[in-house]
Amino acid sequence: MKRKNVAIIGSTGSIGINTLKVIDQFPEQFQVVALSAYNNCDLLIRQIKKYRPRYAAVSQQQYEKIKSRVDAKRCTVCLADQDLAMIATLPQVDVVILAMRGSAALAPFMAAVKAGKTVAPANKEALVVAGDLLIAEARRTGATIVPIDSEQSAIFQCLQGQNRGELKRVLLTASGGTLLRVSSSKFDRLTVEEILSHPRWKMGAKITVDSATLMNKGFEVIEAQKLFGLKANEIRVVVHPQAIIHSMVEFIDGSVLAQLASTDMRLPIQYALTYPQRNSVRLPALDLCAIQSLTFEEPDLKRFPLLALALEVAKKDGSLPAVLNAADEVAVEAFLNRKIKLTKIFDVVSKVVKKHRLVLKPNLQEVLEADQWAREETRKLI
Amino acid sequence: MKRKNVAIIGSTGSIGINTLKVIDQFPEQFQVVALSAYNNCDLLIRQIKKYRPRYAAVSQQQYEKIKSRVDAKRCTVCLADQDLAMIATLPQVDVVILAMRGSAALAPFMAAVKAGKTVAPANKEALVVAGDLLIAEARRTGATIVPIDSEQSAIFQCLQGQNRGELKRVLLTASGGTLLRVSSSKFDRLTVEEILSHPRWKMGAKITVDSATLMNKGFEVIEAQKLFGLKANEIRVVVHPQAIIHSMVEFIDGSVLAQLASTDMRLPIQYALTYPQRNSVRLPALDLCAIQSLTFEEPDLKRFPLLALALEVAKKDGSLPAVLNAADEVAVEAFLNRKIKLTKIFDVVSKVVKKHRLVLKPNLQEVLEADQWAREETRKLI
Repeated sequence: MKRKNVAIIGSTGSIGINTLKVIDQFPEQFQVVALSAYNNCDLLIRQIKKYRPRYAAVSQQQYEKIKSRVDAKRCTVCLADQDLAMIATLPQVDVVILAMRGSAALAPFMAAVKAGKTVAPANKEALVVAGDLLIAEARRTGATIVPIDSEQSAIFQCLQGQNRGELKRVLLTASGGTLLRVSSSKFDRLTVEEILSHPRWKMGAKITVDSATLMNKGFEVIEAQKLFGLKANEIRVVVHPQAIIHSMVEFIDGSVLAQLASTDMRLPIQYALTYPQRNSVRLPALDLCAIQSLTFEEPDLKRFPLLALALEVAKKDGSLPAVLNAADEVAVEAFLNRKIKLTKIFDVVSKVVKKHRLVLKPNLQEVLEADQWAREETRKLI
Repeated sequence: MKRKNVAIIGSTGSIGINTLKVIDQFPEQFQVVALSAYNNCDLLIRQIKKYRPRYAAVSQQQYEKIKSRVDAKRCTVCLADQDLAMIATLPQVDVVILAMRGSAALAPFMAAVKAGKTVAPANKEALVVAGDLLIAEARRTGATIVPIDSEQSAIFQCLQGQNRGELKRVLLTASGGTLLRVSSSKFDRLTVEEILSHPRWKMGAKITVDSATLMNKGFEVIEAQKLFGLKANEIRVVVHPQAIIHSMVEFIDGSVLAQLASTDMRLPIQYALTYPQRNSVRLPALDLCAIQSLTFEEPDLKRFPLLALALEVAKKDGSLPAVLNAADEVAVEAFLNRKIKLTKIFDVVSKVVKKHRLVLKPNLQEVLEADQWAREETRKLI
């Protein structure tokens, strides 16, 4: 079997690091041909020495430092701000792991899709902001999108070999986040540090706040809507604190298929890397008898109004998801900088969403304009 | 779309009745061409009048009664003891619902498989006794076997579109039966009536006793082993009292797919009838938030030694499953007739199993001989 050539965009974040751990397990199956990072120069240098990629991208600031430490004949160093699309479309690349955060991922994502690559996105923003455009382009070129996000991977796995026309709805599970059992009257008394101490996963600060407010789940609703061609009312969020069932699909005959696995992100990463095959894994198997109980509850849309807002945005669609994403990004940054309280995120974001003049079926230009507009509007409210 | 022609062997039992309920919902999709019953003459006559099958089979004793009540030009009445194979192989039959109990189902099952039909077995005995022969024949003729048993249907559904070589094991769920929370010291103080009052399903007496002793789950292990070509150690029984997850499959990459549905046997029956499509259904959807919690525990092989015995039999295989089935049938009948206590079933069956001289890869003749031998041996011990 030919080795798959992998480009990892965002190799020094947790998804990138775990992707390399998976590749370490199967050195005969994968070849790293490109890595990109932004500012974590030291780790990137260690990765370059170990995996010997043909290309490595970094920020402008780190460019000279990397250049001086890497053998230019073996590895071409380039700029993350301008060369990610080039890296994602290298002729020899089979799979692009899109592990970077933020809507800047849209450029390499779209480029890879246009080039007909297999893209494995862990990035949410690109799909939320321009999912319809990405999916339409993938359909045109035959590019395959295999999501890494555990929920989207679960839905993807459950739909394999099933008739898509027989899908009734998706049950998107949510762990419930740090605030699941906290009274909303206490939300604004929590410090940023308390919000950031997620009980289960170590993630970036922005996504941890979004997990606490359930905004992250709202983004996943929009992401699933785009990835699987669903209407907003065909997605139902189910709170499942154990996070063992990663999501479910319900068919028209009442049958539900669920994907379960231990909460280790290497599993969906490996699935995306090996798709359409599965590789064996050296991780402990899921033991439901040890877990004993899986529980389910409705999300509380009153305590978590950002989820309710996201569901509303998913329904109206068009340019609104881009607005939601941009407004939330600015508002969460303000929260992390202690400029606004937690519940103010909703106040600010919902005002911007309400004020936006919806563009139905926006093109890329209109999406980017909506994004810019929303950022400016949100800043005015902080 | 052409209507599917359905033969229902065992139309007056609960599976048969529910099959007709499903057909009632989709009269434009299914045509009943043959029905068979044994002694429930009145219900069979009502079914014949309603569904107008071309053939109807009954026992010798009921033959004249049916004959006198049915228009001979419209419906040919025949004998259940000799004509089921003919009914199962009628040229116009597309799907055979094998809903009758007992190992007598083997003859029509094998005939239908030889004729390349789609067979939907609810019957366990035929697969336990002669599963390898049935599956080998189905492979030869291209016959499709779509199980109706909710556990086997779940496994079947989870495996659709997956690479079979990537299957690691099956997690077969068990509700746990009437005795799940009863101390084994009390087992022999329970009356037959108490054993028969299963909390969840109304089933025949024999299968209710087998459910209480977990022998039924043992048979399902053997059935799954045959249907899906598994080794005994590739099947693990998991007690799941809510019976919402009907079974799961675990892949080599640690991913588990589960099939969930409300506990209504019309769902797997409908799936078997409409396979490879799914029809919409007018039953309430599964609501996990209303159910709240799904629990899992290891089966207690000390309190339920018949399950341990069945797992041992599954491992040794050959003619032993036929012996286990026959010995259990005789022993459970003796229990139902108040001749032996509940725990004596294990004593008797395990003695017969131990005494049997294993025939590896038995042919049909050897299987039937093992069955006969086991019945005689068991009777000697009662």
